[in-house]
Amino acid sequence: MRAPPPVQVDDSDLILLTDLYQLTMVQAYWREAMSESATFSLYFRKLPPSRRFMLACGQQHAAALASRLRFEDRHLEQLAGTGTFEPAFLDWLAGFRFSGDIWTLPEGTPVFANEPLLEVDAPIAEAQLLESLIMNLVQPETVLASKAVRIVMAARGRPVVDFGLRRMHGVDAAVRGVRAYRTAGLAGTSNVLGGLRHDLPLRGTMAHSYILAHDDEREALRAFARSYPGTTLLVDTHDTLEGVRKVIALLAEEPELDVAAIRLDSGDLGELAKASRRLLDEAGHRDIKIIASSGLDEHQIQALLDDGAPIDVFGVGTAMGVAADAPVIDLSYKLVEYAGRPRVKHSSGKVNLPGRKQLYRRRDANGRLAGDVIARRDETLDAGEALLLPLVRSGAVDQETLAMADSARERVAAALGTLPDSLTRLDPGESDYPVALSDALERLRHETG
Amino acid sequence: MRAPPPVQVDDSDLILLTDLYQLTMVQAYWREAMSESATFSLYFRKLPPSRRFMLACGQQHAAALASRLRFEDRHLEQLAGTGTFEPAFLDWLAGFRFSGDIWTLPEGTPVFANEPLLEVDAPIAEAQLLESLIMNLVQPETVLASKAVRIVMAARGRPVVDFGLRRMHGVDAAVRGVRAYRTAGLAGTSNVLGGLRHDLPLRGTMAHSYILAHDDEREALRAFARSYPGTTLLVDTHDTLEGVRKVIALLAEEPELDVAAIRLDSGDLGELAKASRRLLDEAGHRDIKIIASSGLDEHQIQALLDDGAPIDVFGVGTAMGVAADAPVIDLSYKLVEYAGRPRVKHSSGKVNLPGRKQLYRRRDANGRLAGDVIARRDETLDAGEALLLPLVRSGAVDQETLAMADSARERVAAALGTLPDSLTRLDPGESDYPVALSDALERLRHETG
Repeated sequence: MRAPPPVQVDDSDLILLTDLYQLTMVQAYWREAMSESATFSLYFRKLPPSRRFMLACGQQHAAALASRLRFEDRHLEQLAGTGTFEPAFLDWLAGFRFSGDIWTLPEGTPVFANEPLLEVDAPIAEAQLLESLIMNLVQPETVLASKAVRIVMAARGRPVVDFGLRRMHGVDAAVRGVRAYRTAGLAGTSNVLGGLRHDLPLRGTMAHSYILAHDDEREALRAFARSYPGTTLLVDTHDTLEGVRKVIALLAEEPELDVAAIRLDSGDLGELAKASRRLLDEAGHRDIKIIASSGLDEHQIQALLDDGAPIDVFGVGTAMGVAADAPVIDLSYKLVEYAGRPRVKHSSGKVNLPGRKQLYRRRDANGRLAGDVIARRDETLDAGEALLLPLVRSGAVDQETLAMADSARERVAAALGTLPDSLTRLDPGESDYPVALSDALERLRHETG
Repeated sequence: MRAPPPVQVDDSDLILLTDLYQLTMVQAYWREAMSESATFSLYFRKLPPSRRFMLACGQQHAAALASRLRFEDRHLEQLAGTGTFEPAFLDWLAGFRFSGDIWTLPEGTPVFANEPLLEVDAPIAEAQLLESLIMNLVQPETVLASKAVRIVMAARGRPVVDFGLRRMHGVDAAVRGVRAYRTAGLAGTSNVLGGLRHDLPLRGTMAHSYILAHDDEREALRAFARSYPGTTLLVDTHDTLEGVRKVIALLAEEPELDVAAIRLDSGDLGELAKASRRLLDEAGHRDIKIIASSGLDEHQIQALLDDGAPIDVFGVGTAMGVAADAPVIDLSYKLVEYAGRPRVKHSSGKVNLPGRKQLYRRRDANGRLAGDVIARRDETLDAGEALLLPLVRSGAVDQETLAMADSARERVAAALGTLPDSLTRLDPGESDYPVALSDALERLRHETG
């Protein structure tokens, strides 16, 4: 019996989730006996036009995972089958263990152009081998959390629930996406596996199919409300305000039913929310909340609230599920030092910062972010908090630093209260947040240039 | 020793990759003894402005996979822990087996607005339970293949290689993405695990880090060329044309070296390709090919080739890796029939087609696509080929139909030669491809309306 190919990718196979050139370069380093220590730095060169900051997410877990990978026999057999790798090199790969250090920003740290999210110090082959996997793992969490936090800000304290599972790019994006949403401050998710695994409360209402499968809308609403005390009823299947009136009539008939909310999923959400609120209030149901969904993004939520729409909870799917306006961040993982010498690629109009680095963040007297300094790692500055921390040392994961990933949600929540006003704006525009280079890094840049 | 949480999602756990409301609705159906047969239809309401057709991809594998899933004890324990589900219902879930039929388009079929990619006929609970997973699985393959085929068309027969691993949304998107790229007609991928699993040749060149790790660019090029006969050398690390001259000088010194291609990865690719070609040709290296990469999409490739850029192979990453201009397709999985009665949600300005359907595709005398008819499934039309085929019957996967997924690449290649000119254009614009409703479906629509 033929089965469809598996979707599953075992963690132990992630050692092969790499670009072929990493392996060919590593074989070349091995043949050339190039085994000195290198530093690679993970950063992005510019913010997408629609972002005033990014939330660095996923880099601590990615680094911890990647540093533990091994080539197993089945991987080496597959590589042998390509005809590109010689047996002695495959033997060397069999013994491959990551022995270096990885410095990371704590997950949930706001981050700006040219700031390192992560730096790897290791024999060059080891550092090169981690590149593609780390980038693939960091990409979705950073992109999705950075979108989701804008939606959280737009909702001004009202709960936001993730409805995006069906729009997201496959299984891993959907499951780890919930982790990014948790970090960003969402209140819940419809995604059962994602929510269970990443500890975000499960939320669900009902779909139009449930109403349509019944011959009568009011009987469908009745059956669902009887089944689920405290439920949310979807009212827009046929005519939204008629649907609201049916809920009110149902509650008049059966006052013991407990309906917590209605959901609007189509039409002019602002006008329908106002009209629904009036109907509910007039019937004495001031406690029934209004949940709105239907193609929402941060701009629509902002416009609805500016217009006084009485919406209590937002359900957001498509726009957040792929970060539709900025689905990718152009991360670079660049060699910045080898054999004790700073290295840099010269690109016209692009900043490439040589050498091992540290990132300092300064706050003003009120605790608000006041500016960053990208510095050399071997200097000590009085420029605020040093944000890059050693997560992996000599190949071993530091448990205390890894545990910081678990508090990413709290870190983001705290950060939102400390952002300068220009960073909390949702309209497109350049960030004016000051990011400077230390004098020593500026000198190194010119010496290397 | 604390480990980072796994990235891996076992296929057996995909039964929980669903929206909570699917499970609450199914419990409500169970409590209401609603067990009649339903039909759900998977389609999209409109093409993204930047697409003239989509390639339906992933739906055969998704249907075959989803139809085999079971709730295991650990899943039922997790659901019990939510407090939402009663023990007798969880017992019923333990016995859940998909017993219905699933009709699908063969993977790699061009598809237009309102055409069903897939229809599920099953007792309503069973059909409802498959919704979220099928949509999550179909989304990335369809979105990525539909973008990639545009890049293949733009390249006019020149090979296109996937360099997108680092930009894609996580592990599953990257691995199944290669399957979508294979379907779309790419020539190769840099993604080792994806290429090995989904049978697309592995391709790789070298990164700037390799050049930078050496103290001298020419020595780096020499070492790599010696290591890999037939390799591609990256020439733009410092100055592109200087890099080309170094390759030429190297070959003059060591004529036995076999360099197949150079890669340009920055700057004005058109001008640099022309100048590089001249230098190579003047030195007698007409056989050395030019590979270009660096933020390419179909429009840039078209412009480069229109301008006569002598580029032989395109490497494409970011724009294709997330289908940046249309990262999502607004798929709907809608109830269209229950208990023998057509059902439809009325939405102003939206087409919702009731009842079980079939899709017919007509060709002209030259074999070119001439128009589609969306029909009722219970009518037989003389309107071309009937495209929806029963992949799952009474819960069992039809092996011959499933095998059609393996020929998706050939199906796309053949289809590209049969598309009307308006569909092969890459500029934004409405598709003028005729998609009609059969008279019987039109009547049913009005009767249900």
